[in-house]
Amino acid sequence: MQKGNTVFFKNRPAIAAAAAVAGPKECAGVLGDFVDAALGDDMFGENTFERAERKMLLTAVRLSLQKAGCGAEGADVFLSGDLLNQIITASFSARETGMPFLGIYSACSTMSEGLLLAAMLCDGGYAGRAVAATGSHFSSAERQYRYPLELGTTRPPQAQWTVTGAGSFVVAARGEGPAITCGTVGRVTDYGVSDVNNMGAAMAPAAASTILQHFQDTGRAPAYYDLILTGDLGALGSRLCKDLVWEKGKDIEPNHVDCGEIVYKVIEDEFQGGSGAGCSAAVLASYIYDKLRRGGLRRVLFVATGALLSTVSSGQGETIPCIAHAVAIEA
Amino acid sequence: MQKGNTVFFKNRPAIAAAAAVAGPKECAGVLGDFVDAALGDDMFGENTFERAERKMLLTAVRLSLQKAGCGAEGADVFLSGDLLNQIITASFSARETGMPFLGIYSACSTMSEGLLLAAMLCDGGYAGRAVAATGSHFSSAERQYRYPLELGTTRPPQAQWTVTGAGSFVVAARGEGPAITCGTVGRVTDYGVSDVNNMGAAMAPAAASTILQHFQDTGRAPAYYDLILTGDLGALGSRLCKDLVWEKGKDIEPNHVDCGEIVYKVIEDEFQGGSGAGCSAAVLASYIYDKLRRGGLRRVLFVATGALLSTVSSGQGETIPCIAHAVAIEA
Repeated sequence: MQKGNTVFFKNRPAIAAAAAVAGPKECAGVLGDFVDAALGDDMFGENTFERAERKMLLTAVRLSLQKAGCGAEGADVFLSGDLLNQIITASFSARETGMPFLGIYSACSTMSEGLLLAAMLCDGGYAGRAVAATGSHFSSAERQYRYPLELGTTRPPQAQWTVTGAGSFVVAARGEGPAITCGTVGRVTDYGVSDVNNMGAAMAPAAASTILQHFQDTGRAPAYYDLILTGDLGALGSRLCKDLVWEKGKDIEPNHVDCGEIVYKVIEDEFQGGSGAGCSAAVLASYIYDKLRRGGLRRVLFVATGALLSTVSSGQGETIPCIAHAVAIEA
Repeated sequence: MQKGNTVFFKNRPAIAAAAAVAGPKECAGVLGDFVDAALGDDMFGENTFERAERKMLLTAVRLSLQKAGCGAEGADVFLSGDLLNQIITASFSARETGMPFLGIYSACSTMSEGLLLAAMLCDGGYAGRAVAATGSHFSSAERQYRYPLELGTTRPPQAQWTVTGAGSFVVAARGEGPAITCGTVGRVTDYGVSDVNNMGAAMAPAAASTILQHFQDTGRAPAYYDLILTGDLGALGSRLCKDLVWEKGKDIEPNHVDCGEIVYKVIEDEFQGGSGAGCSAAVLASYIYDKLRRGGLRRVLFVATGALLSTVSSGQGETIPCIAHAVAIEA
């Protein structure tokens, strides 16, 4: 990296367009006024959760390409991954679009990994336009990671709710749009949390570590950013993250917001808020991107967070390794 | 991309070192004389298949860093993925090494995706040294994708055998070693094969498509390369791939070898040969890399192939989308 774990983009690759799709529960909250496609029901006209998830991702990708004024043939590469085993949502979507495809996986921080790689590929001259996208679906995630929905299992109060939604970004080597100016690649951090219902606590140290590394590498203070936007720490995880950063002498309280914390009006059993790869992707691709385009925000540090466990690793008694990547977006 | 789907590396990032680890069945074949660590038994002193797989990957990574004359702190980024759900082999290994980590997934073509991205990051000035690695384990793959071993399920004759092995490469922005000169990013190809026991047939069109695209983008003929090394098509898949390329007017028969076809002395039920992310990774990182270093080979086109299915997608009646990425390595 050019400095510590941080890369700097001298050619200022721009986010030419973004598009987001979200389910009905999500659209009842802040996303409702900003997404490009609001689903009437979370099956999206398909007969399986997995196909619905795929259709959301594909829709977000196609809308973002449309807004960027090009089709799939105008994009050099598609960077995508998702929460399902073997990232089938991304792979099957790649098949439909026909774009050259690089599969990535970083759990719920897939969006920031995708944006970072897209920026490197565009800035380095390897791609003219790169599409970075991800998504998640509550029901496919519950089935795979937790329990069949039909069981009606009670959720503990520290749990989060996987967002049904997708976000897609078209990053361009040149042109209009908020620029990706630098980014910090995360290290895997594990404080020994093994409670799979408490992802916020597991991921908070990874977010704090990447945020602190970013400040150190760039020499920037928290106040440099209008907004430090973490991925899906939720309410509890956000407090832990802010405390961990504060302990190291930096205060992000005034300008920190967490996508998981704001995505729902928490009225039922969403408890700590939203999670899932689609959470930070949809929030950034709609509400936040809109503010960046209209001047409501000028400098955003996007820090999506991911828990890199599997049902097998948890079943074998392992703790939860987590990661967070930071992407600086400046209008 | 700079031309079609192909990127060219003007700064000639070099493969500074490579290391491979393989299981006993694999070491009975061509790998035996070339791997850095040959396992006496495939549990590698661990109590689960998954931990054994992880230990293989970690061992390969650490040996490659040692051979490159640096530790994990000398590498800027670790690019890795594997066949297990949520790429836990890569993620948990990333936790142990502490390197900044970018998770990737491209099934059995993960090695070529990793090398391609590592070359872009080094060539573009984003990393001084990047580690790209992957691996697989017969028993963890069987358990996850097929049947518990204890069932003793009969294998059909078109089946391949997942390689127990791992390969790791240290790519450096400058210095000694075979250079990565260009690479072609694959598109997802699906000819409608849905037989999960016939991966070779499913993947052959993806390999052929990427090889043809590479020739078209670079203007090179098959004879430019001493060796065109496909991933894990196996015996049947290799024949199909050569036929598909030949139909388009290019003949790769004289200089084509498939890692899956050569990795085993096929004497039992390996049938079509080897497969798995560790197959092409271990063959390239040992036998082939050795030949590149010693002058036995000068120009190799490495085309690892991947089948992007999951048990869920197959269970829902989907066909198998496949991909192949090509990396040109020149001594």
